[in-house]
Amino acid sequence: MARVRVAVAGASGYAGGEVLRLLLSHPEVEIGALTGASNAGQPLGALQPHLVPLADRVLEPTTIEVLTGHDVVFLALPHGQSGEVAAQLGDDTVVIDCGADFRLRDAGEWEKFYGGEHAGTWPYGLPELPGRREELRGARRIAVPGCYPTISTLSLAPAVAAGIIEPNVSVVAVSGTSGAGKAAKAHLLGSEIMGNASAYGVGGGHRHTPEITQNLSALTDATVAVSFTPLLVPMPRGILATCSADLVGEVSADQAYAVYAEAYADEPFVHVLPQGQWPQTKSVTGSNTVQLQVTVDETAGRLVAVGAVDNLAKGTGGAAVQCMNLALGLDEGTGLTTIGLAP
Amino acid sequence: MARVRVAVAGASGYAGGEVLRLLLSHPEVEIGALTGASNAGQPLGALQPHLVPLADRVLEPTTIEVLTGHDVVFLALPHGQSGEVAAQLGDDTVVIDCGADFRLRDAGEWEKFYGGEHAGTWPYGLPELPGRREELRGARRIAVPGCYPTISTLSLAPAVAAGIIEPNVSVVAVSGTSGAGKAAKAHLLGSEIMGNASAYGVGGGHRHTPEITQNLSALTDATVAVSFTPLLVPMPRGILATCSADLVGEVSADQAYAVYAEAYADEPFVHVLPQGQWPQTKSVTGSNTVQLQVTVDETAGRLVAVGAVDNLAKGTGGAAVQCMNLALGLDEGTGLTTIGLAP
Amino acid sequence: MARVRVAVAGASGYAGGEVLRLLLSHPEVEIGALTGASNAGQPLGALQPHLVPLADRVLEPTTIEVLTGHDVVFLALPHGQSGEVAAQLGDDTVVIDCGADFRLRDAGEWEKFYGGEHAGTWPYGLPELPGRREELRGARRIAVPGCYPTISTLSLAPAVAAGIIEPNVSVVAVSGTSGAGKAAKAHLLGSEIMGNASAYGVGGGHRHTPEITQNLSALTDATVAVSFTPLLVPMPRGILATCSADLVGEVSADQAYAVYAEAYADEPFVHVLPQGQWPQTKSVTGSNTVQLQVTVDETAGRLVAVGAVDNLAKGTGGAAVQCMNLALGLDEGTGLTTIGLAP
Amino acid sequence: MARVRVAVAGASGYAGGEVLRLLLSHPEVEIGALTGASNAGQPLGALQPHLVPLADRVLEPTTIEVLTGHDVVFLALPHGQSGEVAAQLGDDTVVIDCGADFRLRDAGEWEKFYGGEHAGTWPYGLPELPGRREELRGARRIAVPGCYPTISTLSLAPAVAAGIIEPNVSVVAVSGTSGAGKAAKAHLLGSEIMGNASAYGVGGGHRHTPEITQNLSALTDATVAVSFTPLLVPMPRGILATCSADLVGEVSADQAYAVYAEAYADEPFVHVLPQGQWPQTKSVTGSNTVQLQVTVDETAGRLVAVGAVDNLAKGTGGAAVQCMNLALGLDEGTGLTTIGLAP
Repeated sequence: MARVRVAVAGASGYAGGEVLRLLLSHPEVEIGALTGASNAGQPLGALQPHLVPLADRVLEPTTIEVLTGHDVVFLALPHGQSGEVAAQLGDDTVVIDCGADFRLRDAGEWEKFYGGEHAGTWPYGLPELPGRREELRGARRIAVPGCYPTISTLSLAPAVAAGIIEPNVSVVAVSGTSGAGKAAKAHLLGSEIMGNASAYGVGGGHRHTPEITQNLSALTDATVAVSFTPLLVPMPRGILATCSADLVGEVSADQAYAVYAEAYADEPFVHVLPQGQWPQTKSVTGSNTVQLQVTVDETAGRLVAVGAVDNLAKGTGGAAVQCMNLALGLDEGTGLTTIGLAP
Repeated sequence: MARVRVAVAGASGYAGGEVLRLLLSHPEVEIGALTGASNAGQPLGALQPHLVPLADRVLEPTTIEVLTGHDVVFLALPHGQSGEVAAQLGDDTVVIDCGADFRLRDAGEWEKFYGGEHAGTWPYGLPELPGRREELRGARRIAVPGCYPTISTLSLAPAVAAGIIEPNVSVVAVSGTSGAGKAAKAHLLGSEIMGNASAYGVGGGHRHTPEITQNLSALTDATVAVSFTPLLVPMPRGILATCSADLVGEVSADQAYAVYAEAYADEPFVHVLPQGQWPQTKSVTGSNTVQLQVTVDETAGRLVAVGAVDNLAKGTGGAAVQCMNLALGLDEGTGLTTIGLAP
Repeated sequence: MARVRVAVAGASGYAGGEVLRLLLSHPEVEIGALTGASNAGQPLGALQPHLVPLADRVLEPTTIEVLTGHDVVFLALPHGQSGEVAAQLGDDTVVIDCGADFRLRDAGEWEKFYGGEHAGTWPYGLPELPGRREELRGARRIAVPGCYPTISTLSLAPAVAAGIIEPNVSVVAVSGTSGAGKAAKAHLLGSEIMGNASAYGVGGGHRHTPEITQNLSALTDATVAVSFTPLLVPMPRGILATCSADLVGEVSADQAYAVYAEAYADEPFVHVLPQGQWPQTKSVTGSNTVQLQVTVDETAGRLVAVGAVDNLAKGTGGAAVQCMNLALGLDEGTGLTTIGLAP
Repeated sequence: MARVRVAVAGASGYAGGEVLRLLLSHPEVEIGALTGASNAGQPLGALQPHLVPLADRVLEPTTIEVLTGHDVVFLALPHGQSGEVAAQLGDDTVVIDCGADFRLRDAGEWEKFYGGEHAGTWPYGLPELPGRREELRGARRIAVPGCYPTISTLSLAPAVAAGIIEPNVSVVAVSGTSGAGKAAKAHLLGSEIMGNASAYGVGGGHRHTPEITQNLSALTDATVAVSFTPLLVPMPRGILATCSADLVGEVSADQAYAVYAEAYADEPFVHVLPQGQWPQTKSVTGSNTVQLQVTVDETAGRLVAVGAVDNLAKGTGGAAVQCMNLALGLDEGTGLTTIGLAP
C-alpha cells in the first residue's frame, strides 16, 4: 500500500512538533509539507533540533497551495485560524485540528471563551468516550480535544456515567508549561517557572471549562457543573488532574474502583492502576496512555479520582495520530506507544 | 537586655536548618547548642553549607544535658520524639515543637495517624486564628502547625467563620519536596521528582487531614468535612493550596473577597492580593507571608480560595520564630520578613 | 526467524529500566526473565510504572538458573558484580555488561578506582571509535562504555586522531542525576538537587577519568592527559560536555569543523550540528544520538567542542541495544531512534 | 542620621528587583523613586509580587526629573542606556550602574562586544580584588561587575596573582536563567529550559570574556588568555564556575589551597570551603557570599578551582549594595548576608 502523505501546518510549535515526533515512527506515513508563519523559510533543525531526520527540511508558508495534495493535514495553528484553512481543503482530505475551533457545539460558549465567530463542530477525537469511536472511523474532519478536557473527562466519565456522583464536580489540574505554547511570554520564562507553582484562570474563567462540561453532561441527563482550577507547576510536560465530587448514596472504594476498571477494561490507552498505586505524570511522558486511580474519601463522602496524561502526547499529538488511524481505517494504535520515558 | 539563648534539637534537617537560618538574623537571639542524631560530631558546615556563620559549629547529641540551660529550645525531631524530651525540660524553658506531637486535641485521631501514644496538646502556634494569639503570649510550650494545615486553614478560615460556605471543603495542595524531609528515600530522589507531578495519601489518608478538620471546625458549630489531596511537584519549597466549597446561598465574588480582606486586614503575615491577582509560591519563598486570593465560581456555585506559603518558612521555621517572639513578649515580627526571594 | 530471547539482570534500576524501554520497541526481541536484588518478588509495575506492557511481570532473584536459557543477557548490576555472573553463563550467550567491570584494560587502574579485583576486559561497546565496530560484530561479551566517557570521547576523538590538539585535554561535563543511580542518598534528593549546581570528584578523582584516557590515548601515540570535572545540575537525564585543548599550530574554526564533519559523516548516531548551532541535552532525550559542535577560540588558541548525550539512552541502554544488534548481526539501529523527546 | 534616599531605575527587571529586595532590609536606606520603561504606571506588586512592602508603589518613567534628588541612584537598565542618564545626574549623587556600560577600559573591546559608543570607565565594584576597595570608598560613580566575571575572577585571582598557573585559563560556567534577564524570549521559556543544559556564546564570543581578561591581566604582567564557555542549566539563580589552568612548576594541592586561604582570609564575602568540600550554588542563593574550593589535578598538571555565586545577589544586586556601602562610608556589609537560602 502506498504510504499516507501527511502535511503539518504549524510545524514549529509544540503541538506540531509532537505530531511530527510521532509521525516519524509511524510505519504508514510519509511526511510531506511542513509549514510555519514567521518561521517559514527556516530549516526545521534550527526550530526543533530533536527531530534529527527532518533537520534539513525547510518550513513553507501556511497556504492552501502548500497544503493541497496531501491525504491528511494536521492543523496546529493558533485558535481561530483553522476554520478558514479547512474550508479550502477538499472533502477527501482528512483534516485533523489540534486547536479549539471545532470542539464546542455551543456557538455562544465558543464565542464567549475564544472570541470571534464559531467555525462549527467536528467529530470529537476522544474515542474512549461512549459512542465516539464509531464517529471517528472514516471521518474526514476531526477536532482533537483540549489537553485538560482529555484528562478531566477520562478521570470522571465512568463515575458520571454510572451515576455514583452528584453532577457537580471539582477539578484541580496541575500542568507543565508546554500547554501554554511556545510563544515568548515573560510569565512563562524559565526564571519565573522553576521553583514556582501558580494559579490562573480560577473561578470558571478557563477556556477548557465548557469543553469539560460538554463532555460530562453528554454522559448523564443533567448538566454537570464543573469547577475547574488549572495550576502551572515546574515541569515541561504532563497534567495531573485531581477530580472529586460528592457521592450519590453509599459507594465503597472497591465499588468505585470496579466501575473504573470495567469502563476501561478494553481501552488500550487508559491504564487503571492497581488499587493503592497513584498516578504520576512521568510514567506517561511521551506515551499515549492515561494512567488513572480512584478512591472514596469516607469522611468527606466524596469520590476522588486522579489522572495523569502527557498534555502534548495523548493530550494533543498522540490523540491526533490516534484519530488519523481511525479515520484511515488503520489499527488505532499504529505508531503510538503505551510506554513512558522515565526517569 | 541579655540575648535570649536558644538551642535547636535536630539542626541537620530541613526544619532545624530553617529555624537556624531565621535565628541568625534575629537581633535578640544568641545561638547555643545544636544537636543531631546520627550526625552528632559533624560540623554544621558539612550538613548545612548555606549557614556560613555556623560552619564550624559541631553537632552535639540530643540529650537533656545538652539542651538544658537555654531560654528557648526548638525541637525539630521525628514525630513521636518530642514528648520525652519536653517532659525533662523545666517549665521556665520555652519549648517550641516543630513536630506533630502536640498539635491534635483528640488522642484517638493522633494515634490513628501517627501511631504510638498521644503526648498531649499544647497551645497551637497559628496566631492568625481567632483567639490564638492571646494563648501564645507568654506560653512556655507551643506546637507549631503542620505546613499543609497552615495554608489550608488560613485559606478557608474567613469563609468558614463567616458562614458563607457549606462545612464540606475540598483542598488540593501541591507541595515542594522539602516537606517530606531530608531522610533519603528513593521516591524523593531528584531523578524521580524532576519533570514529575504525583499524588499520595489520597482519600483521607494524610496525617494533616485531622489537623485541618480541627482548625476549621473550631470556627463554626459544625464538624467541617475535609477532603484533602496532597500532590508532590518539582520544586524544593512551597505549597499552593486550592480550596473550595459549595456556597451557602448567593455570595458574589466581591462579597467573598470583602470577607477575606476584612478578616486579614490587621495581620502582618497574611497578604490578600488585589482582586484578580492569583498567588504563586515563589513570591513567598523564604518569607513569613501567606499570599491569598478568593473568588466565586458562579456556574458551579462554589467558593474557590488559593493560598501560597513557604512550607519551611511560615509553614514551619518562620511560624516557630513568630511563636517564640510571642512567648517572649517581643515584637511578633522580629527577625522575620514579608519579602520573598524571587526569581 | 524466531525472536531473540533476552533477560535483564537489575531490571528495577535506571539502566535496566532504560534497556527494557528500548527492548519493548525492538521488533526482534522477546523479553524473558527480569531480575532484581531486594526488589525480587515485586511486580515491575510498582517499580517502573512507565513500562506499562510489563506492569504485571514479577522480578525474580538474580541467579544463574533464572538467567540461563536466554540468547542475550543484559547486566545492569552494581559495579563489581558482573564478573561472577558472566563467568557462569555459557559462551553462546551474548552477555552485555552495562557496568564498569570489563571496560578498563589496566587492572591497576581498575582496582584504584573501583576497588576489588579486576574481572577482565571485554570488547568495548563504542562502535563509533575507529576499529571498534568490527570487534563488536558477533561478539559474545561486550562492555558498554560509561556515560561520561561516551560523550567525552566522541567529542574529542576526531581532534585527537587528526593531531590538531595537544594531548592534554580538559572536560567539564554537566550531568543530570540519573547517572548517579536509583539508590536513595540524601545528597541526591530532589530538595537538594533542584535549584542547585554542584561539583564532585574534582581533580582527577572520578572513576570515568581512566576510561576517557584509555579511549583517547588509543587514537594517538601519546598518553592523553585528561582533566575531568563532573558537575551535577537539576535535570533527570542528559550530559553536556565542554571539551577543550590547546591547538597544535594554526587551526581555523572551519578546519576544525571539517575534521569533525568528516569523521562522523557515516555515523548514524552522531549528529554534527550545522556550524553555529550548539548542542543541548533535551534534543537527545530518549534518543541514541550524540549531538556535537566544535569551534576554535582564537584568542585563547584553544579548540572547544561541546557534545550532548542522554546518559541513559546512548550513554547506557541505547548503546547496550546497539551493541546487541552488532553482536547478533542485526541492523545496528534496530529498535533505536535518532529522535529526541522535547520539550 | 537621616536615611539615605535611594532611587532604582529599571525596578521591574531581575537586577532592579534584587537591588530592591536587599535595600528593603538595609537599615540606613529610604526607598525613593522606582522607574520602568514600558511598565511605568503599573504597581510594583503586579511586577514583583515578592516585594510585599512595595506592592502599592507605582513605577514612574525613567527620566532625570524622577531620578534627581536622591542620594543614590541604581541603574538597572539595558546595556548602552546608562551613560546618558548618568551624565545628567549631579556629581554629588552616587550612581551605581548594574549594566556593562562602564566596566571595560578598552573602548575598542567595548564596542566590539556591545556595539554603540563606549561611555567611559568607572571604578570597578569588586572590592575583593587587590587595591579596588580603596577606589570604591567615597566614589560617586561605580560600575558593578558582570556576574560571570565576578565568579571567574575571584576563582582564579589568587592563582594568577601568586604566579602558580600559566596565563592561559579555561572557564566553564554553568548558569541559571535569571542572568539572561526578564525579557520574553522563546529559548528562555520554562518549557525549553527545564530538563535541558545548553551551550551558547562558545569560542570567545561572550561579552563577559574581555571583562574577565581585564581583571586577571591586571594581577600579573602578562595578558591572560581566557577561554570562556557559558552554559545554561535549569535553575533560576546561581553560577558554578569551573576554572582551570596549567600549573607553573610543581604545585601541590595543599600549596594551592594555602594560596587561596590566605588571599581571602580577611574577606567577609568570600568563603573558601574546608579542603575536600566542593561548592554548590544553592548554598549561596540570596546571599552575598562566594564559596570556593581549589585543588590540583596531578595527572593533568592542572589547577582546578570551582566557585559558586548567586548571579543576582553577590553577582549583581548584592555587589551593588556592597559598593553603595563603601561609597557612603557605611560598614561594607550593611544590609547584606552571608547566609544562603536552602534547600
